[in-house]
Amino acid sequence: MRQILLLGAGRSVGSFIDYLKPFAKKNNWKLVIGDQSIELAKARAKEFPEARAILFDVFDSVQLKSEISAADVVISMIPAHLHIHVIKQCVASEKSVFTASYVSEEIKGLNEEAANKGLLILMEMGLDPGIDHMSAMKEIDEIKKGGGELLSFKSFTGGLIAPESDNNPWNYKFTWNPRNVVLAGQGTVKFIRNGRYKYITYHNLFKRLENIEVPGHGVFEGYANRDSLSYRSIYGLGNIPTIFRGTLRRKGFCSAWDVFVQLGMTDDTYEIEQLEEMTYRDFINSYLVYHKEKTVEEKLKDFFKLTDDTIIDKLSWLGILEKKIIPLKKTTPARVLQHLLEEKWRLMPEDKDMVVMQHLFEYKVGGESIQKKTSMVVKGENAEHTSMAKTVGLPLGIAVRLYLEGKLNLVGVHVPVLPEIYNPVLDELEDYGVTFF
Amino acid sequence: MRQILLLGAGRSVGSFIDYLKPFAKKNNWKLVIGDQSIELAKARAKEFPEARAILFDVFDSVQLKSEISAADVVISMIPAHLHIHVIKQCVASEKSVFTASYVSEEIKGLNEEAANKGLLILMEMGLDPGIDHMSAMKEIDEIKKGGGELLSFKSFTGGLIAPESDNNPWNYKFTWNPRNVVLAGQGTVKFIRNGRYKYITYHNLFKRLENIEVPGHGVFEGYANRDSLSYRSIYGLGNIPTIFRGTLRRKGFCSAWDVFVQLGMTDDTYEIEQLEEMTYRDFINSYLVYHKEKTVEEKLKDFFKLTDDTIIDKLSWLGILEKKIIPLKKTTPARVLQHLLEEKWRLMPEDKDMVVMQHLFEYKVGGESIQKKTSMVVKGENAEHTSMAKTVGLPLGIAVRLYLEGKLNLVGVHVPVLPEIYNPVLDELEDYGVTFF
Repeated sequence: MRQILLLGAGRSVGSFIDYLKPFAKKNNWKLVIGDQSIELAKARAKEFPEARAILFDVFDSVQLKSEISAADVVISMIPAHLHIHVIKQCVASEKSVFTASYVSEEIKGLNEEAANKGLLILMEMGLDPGIDHMSAMKEIDEIKKGGGELLSFKSFTGGLIAPESDNNPWNYKFTWNPRNVVLAGQGTVKFIRNGRYKYITYHNLFKRLENIEVPGHGVFEGYANRDSLSYRSIYGLGNIPTIFRGTLRRKGFCSAWDVFVQLGMTDDTYEIEQLEEMTYRDFINSYLVYHKEKTVEEKLKDFFKLTDDTIIDKLSWLGILEKKIIPLKKTTPARVLQHLLEEKWRLMPEDKDMVVMQHLFEYKVGGESIQKKTSMVVKGENAEHTSMAKTVGLPLGIAVRLYLEGKLNLVGVHVPVLPEIYNPVLDELEDYGVTFF
Repeated sequence: MRQILLLGAGRSVGSFIDYLKPFAKKNNWKLVIGDQSIELAKARAKEFPEARAILFDVFDSVQLKSEISAADVVISMIPAHLHIHVIKQCVASEKSVFTASYVSEEIKGLNEEAANKGLLILMEMGLDPGIDHMSAMKEIDEIKKGGGELLSFKSFTGGLIAPESDNNPWNYKFTWNPRNVVLAGQGTVKFIRNGRYKYITYHNLFKRLENIEVPGHGVFEGYANRDSLSYRSIYGLGNIPTIFRGTLRRKGFCSAWDVFVQLGMTDDTYEIEQLEEMTYRDFINSYLVYHKEKTVEEKLKDFFKLTDDTIIDKLSWLGILEKKIIPLKKTTPARVLQHLLEEKWRLMPEDKDMVVMQHLFEYKVGGESIQKKTSMVVKGENAEHTSMAKTVGLPLGIAVRLYLEGKLNLVGVHVPVLPEIYNPVLDELEDYGVTFF
């Protein structure tokens, strides 16, 4: 009998559990599910043959130690900034641990100790980061093996709404953390283009778009992610002249979203005065130049030099032009916007979401310049079984199974860029409809 | 005999000392000048009949206590964030203290104790803050006395270069802290226009300009200061529908400066990669979209839709289009820009600077709507005796003299908004050429 400790019982956990179920039955693997909500943990435990739910508090060091010591492997799906507490205890108790979150410098610092103890700390084992690493590295390794020299690598991912559930003018609904969507891109974007460092300041981000065509799924637009530079070393791409990572939206989304960015309505650094007396229309108006006679719509058209109503229609659909009191107390513009968007961009129970990923490679081999493109589209079933949850939970489940079956023999801190990991995981993902074309 | 303790021996101290000299001679006032540079303190001490220079360290609590205890009054001209240490000791040692810096919440908290001990803590007694408060409050009090109801108050100040020393296409040179000029306006501007809160995000700041005409001195442009709202309560303007404070530049400055803002080159939050290999031309190019053939100048013209060379000429004059290696190690874009500007916008020894201030009032009296405008222009003599130094040092000197002569009988924490302060100070400033018209 082996014992699996799963910390966190949020949305992605469903597909992780679904995946492991048959293997657990066959191999007599037990599952302990810990969450700060015992109800949530219990609900998840019901779905699994031999599962025990516990009320889990990451700051209860006695519990942390005893539960981790009793486990054979640990999966941490709690909020990313809390992983370090779990991982440190795993190293102390000599247990391997898996997460779908970004590796931090602090976690990297545990590499030697983990390796000496024969433990694996596998980070970034979800979708993005996760499937992006694996699918890109498979291509990169193949290109290199064939004697190719990489000139450019661009990679885009988007969590979107499937066409059959797309019924709003933004062609978008929230399928992941709304706050991260509202704040996306704040700060400065860094990447490399033809050997030169390039910077895009936040207020230019949603103007500098790339068109991305996904065969059979139409054209999307991609805006740059914060940091593409670190991927040069992660992917072993040394001095590749161009490296760029971006986020996908349906065409037209970014120019409308840019209205909020340009006006400063995504700012999260100050609180709005007298918010309790304001309507959504007052809110947007407080960012527009005063004019005696012009309406908010007219002022928006003037400021953004709009020649048609596409953008105004999108704003209007959101309700941001309505004279409806904002039901919030003292808070930031970003929080007000998020509140409104959460209402409007909510996934309905039967809505299907859609994850889209595309990698674009340019390389030289034998004097010839070659372009290669590989894409993935995964659709969800409904608001509970989303493609987001599936593409995060599945890679993690597969990696844990491989580990428990003794088929993953790495030690130390890793992200899935090695063929030992990406080959079996990508192969098995295909059985679940997660395929590249 | 009375003893004056002056902490800080920087530029503004010169006009403060010059002003006090004759009064000190007549009244047998001694001066102790403390600075962290003993050379600077000694140089200043030479200018004064009975002055002693000391090496002063604000963190040496023994020295702080002994020097303050020996003084009759303290003037603190050290960096603003350090005032609190001086002021706390002044309250403990029961001494009145004067500064030209903004009052903080922590300093306000000393009000009751200072008042109980019969001490005056007079803050914001320079130019801006200082002369702006006094000249505005004099008008506001007069308008109110005449039964007027204030509808709008706008106030602009600029530290500029006098026309006779103006020999660059920006019509600007540094007359104050260059770093503050480079970072000016970052964050979000807040003001009130016709009873409504208005916000201007940083990247729109240098587009939303007001034209300000100063009789005999031409037209300037004003951009909004960070926080105008707090002036409603400071000036007792309760619910005035419009309140706005701004900074003045010569016409055309802001649209050229906006190039740096739009591209993100005033950002101080990250360090540039491989700076040591970059030219100034590379620096600006790293913010422009890659193009195979277009020059930096062409890309700038495209991005900003420039129809003539006015802005390119300004940029070119700065040297930011030159292929000259940046002589700096790992630092932020804002620091790189500042380094270049400090070279180009430096005040030459014989350059005359110019301080410009204008207040604009709109009020109703007996059903009639009245507009009133009052302006001040002060020119410096040279790079040492600047109008900036004069307009900061003089109000402080006058206030200290009034205090030592027993003519300033306020206690507690104050800024100069009361007639007991502004009337005698503004009257005397006129003798020194600091007049409103």
